[in-house]
Amino acid sequence: MTSLEPAMAAVVAAVEGELDRLLPAAAGQQARLHEAMRYAVLGGGKRLRPFLTVAAARLFEVPDAASLRAACAVELIHAYSLAHDDLPAMDDAALRRGRPACHRAFDEATAILVGDALQALAFELLARDDYGADAAQRCALTLGLARAAGAGGMCGGQMIDLEAERRTLTLEQIGELQRLKTGALIRFAAEAGAVLGRAEPEQRAALCGYADCLGLAFQIKDDLLDLEGDTALTGKDGGRDHAAGKATFVRLLGEAGARRMLAELRDQASARLDIFQERATVLGCLFEFVTDRRS
Amino acid sequence: MTSLEPAMAAVVAAVEGELDRLLPAAAGQQARLHEAMRYAVLGGGKRLRPFLTVAAARLFEVPDAASLRAACAVELIHAYSLAHDDLPAMDDAALRRGRPACHRAFDEATAILVGDALQALAFELLARDDYGADAAQRCALTLGLARAAGAGGMCGGQMIDLEAERRTLTLEQIGELQRLKTGALIRFAAEAGAVLGRAEPEQRAALCGYADCLGLAFQIKDDLLDLEGDTALTGKDGGRDHAAGKATFVRLLGEAGARRMLAELRDQASARLDIFQERATVLGCLFEFVTDRRS
Repeated sequence: MTSLEPAMAAVVAAVEGELDRLLPAAAGQQARLHEAMRYAVLGGGKRLRPFLTVAAARLFEVPDAASLRAACAVELIHAYSLAHDDLPAMDDAALRRGRPACHRAFDEATAILVGDALQALAFELLARDDYGADAAQRCALTLGLARAAGAGGMCGGQMIDLEAERRTLTLEQIGELQRLKTGALIRFAAEAGAVLGRAEPEQRAALCGYADCLGLAFQIKDDLLDLEGDTALTGKDGGRDHAAGKATFVRLLGEAGARRMLAELRDQASARLDIFQERATVLGCLFEFVTDRRS
Repeated sequence: MTSLEPAMAAVVAAVEGELDRLLPAAAGQQARLHEAMRYAVLGGGKRLRPFLTVAAARLFEVPDAASLRAACAVELIHAYSLAHDDLPAMDDAALRRGRPACHRAFDEATAILVGDALQALAFELLARDDYGADAAQRCALTLGLARAAGAGGMCGGQMIDLEAERRTLTLEQIGELQRLKTGALIRFAAEAGAVLGRAEPEQRAALCGYADCLGLAFQIKDDLLDLEGDTALTGKDGGRDHAAGKATFVRLLGEAGARRMLAELRDQASARLDIFQERATVLGCLFEFVTDRRS
C-alpha cells in the first residue's frame, strides 16, 4: 500500500489538472451546462479508472502525456454515468461524493444534458488532432470506449440493474450485470494502456484479465461497503441497495463468502500480472487499494 | 421536387436497412434496452440528415456503401436527442412521429439509457474496423460528430433552449440557439460527405455554408408548422412552442418576415452550391423539400 499512495496521488493530480483544462469554461449562452459539467467531473472521486490507464500504459513505457488523454476520456464516461444513474428516474440518489448529486445541485434537465455532453466530449478528446496517438490508435481507443460504454457494456448493465428490482437474479446473472455495468469500463481503462503501448496480444489479454478481477473485486467491495452503509465515509446514501432488496454478491454469497471471493480474485489478478514481473507492482498494489478501501 | 423523391426514397430505404442491421437485436438480459433503441430509431422520420450525408458524398463520387455508415451515425445521434428531448424533465412530449414518445412506450429510465446507448453506438460505428474509411477519415468523422453533438453543439443548444423558457431571447440569440441545437448536426451531416470525398477546402466550406442555410430554413419551417399546429400531420403535439410563449423566429419576425427569410436563405443556399454546378441539383431540390414540407 505505502508504495502506491504517492504514485496515485501524483497521477490523480495530473488527471484533475488535465480534466480542468479540457472541460469547457463556464462561459457562453450555455454557461450553465458548462458549469454543471465541471461540477459533475471535478467533484473529487477516487480516479481509479484513469489511474489504471496511466499505470497500464507505463508497463509499456508510454509517456504519461499520451496516456492521460485516454485516461480523461474514460473518466468522463464514468462521470456521465454517475450523473445519469443518480437521476430520479434511475437510482434516485441525492448525494454523490458527499455533495448534492448533479440533478440536485442543478436540475434534472441539466443533469441529463451534462451526461450527454460529457459522453460526446470523451469521444472528441480521443479524436482530436492535438492528441499525439496515431489515427489507428485513436480509432482503436474510440472503438473500445464506445463498446464499453454502450448497450453491450455500461448502458446494458444499468438496464439489467434497473430490471433487477423487479426480479431475482442468479449469481451468474449478477456476474453478467457487473461485467457490463462496471466491469466493461474498468477493463477498457486497462486495455487503453495496452493499445497505446502496442502490447503483444498475450500482454493485452493478461491486462484485461487482471482488470476483470479488479472490476469484480471493486463491485464486491462496494456491496460490502453498502452493507456497512456509512454515508459519512462513502459520500453516498448508505445501505440503499441492500435495503432495496437488490440481489448483490453479498446477499447471495453472504459476507464471509464475499470476502472469500475477494481473496480468490486477488490470487487470480496476481497470476495475470506475472507476465509483467516486477513492473506490475503498482497494479498489484492497486488491487489491494481497491479491496482495502473504506469508502 | 419531382426529381428528388425517388432518389430520397431509395436512400431512406437503404438507411432503414442499414440501421436495422446495425442496431442490436432485442436479445440478452438487456433485451428491453435493445428493443427500446430499435423503437426510437426505426420509427420512421424524414431521414433528412442521412440523406444529406449520402447526397453530399455523391458530389465527390463516394460510393453510397461508404457514406451510409456515416449517415447512420448521424441519424443515431439525432434519434438519441429526440428520446432525451422528449423526456418529462426536458420538453415533456407525449408524441413523436405519431407514436408514443420513447419514455411513454417504455419508461423514463429506459429512454435515458436508450439515448446514452445510441450515442455510444454512433461513435462505435465510425470507429469499427469493418468501416471501409481509413483511420484518419474515421477520426475526422468522430471529431466532427462529437463536436456537433456536444456542449458546443446540440447539447449546448438544448441548454439554451431550456433556459429560454425563463428569459426572452433576441433574434441573434435565437440564431445561436438554432445554430447549436439543430444546425451543428445538419452541418456535420453535409461535412461528413466532404470528409469522405476528400473535398478541397473551398468545396467543404461551400457545403457547410449550404447546410447552415438548410438547417436554419428547417428550423424556421418547423416554427411555421408549429404555429399551424396540426398534430395529424406533424405527429407531434401541435403548437407547443408557440403556446409556451417561447421565442421563435416566427414570433420575432412575424409569419411574413419568416417567409421572407426562407426565400433569402434559398438564394444563399443556391449560391453556395454554384461551385458544384449541375451535380448539386439534388441538394437544391432538398432545400425546396425542406421548406415546402407539410410535416
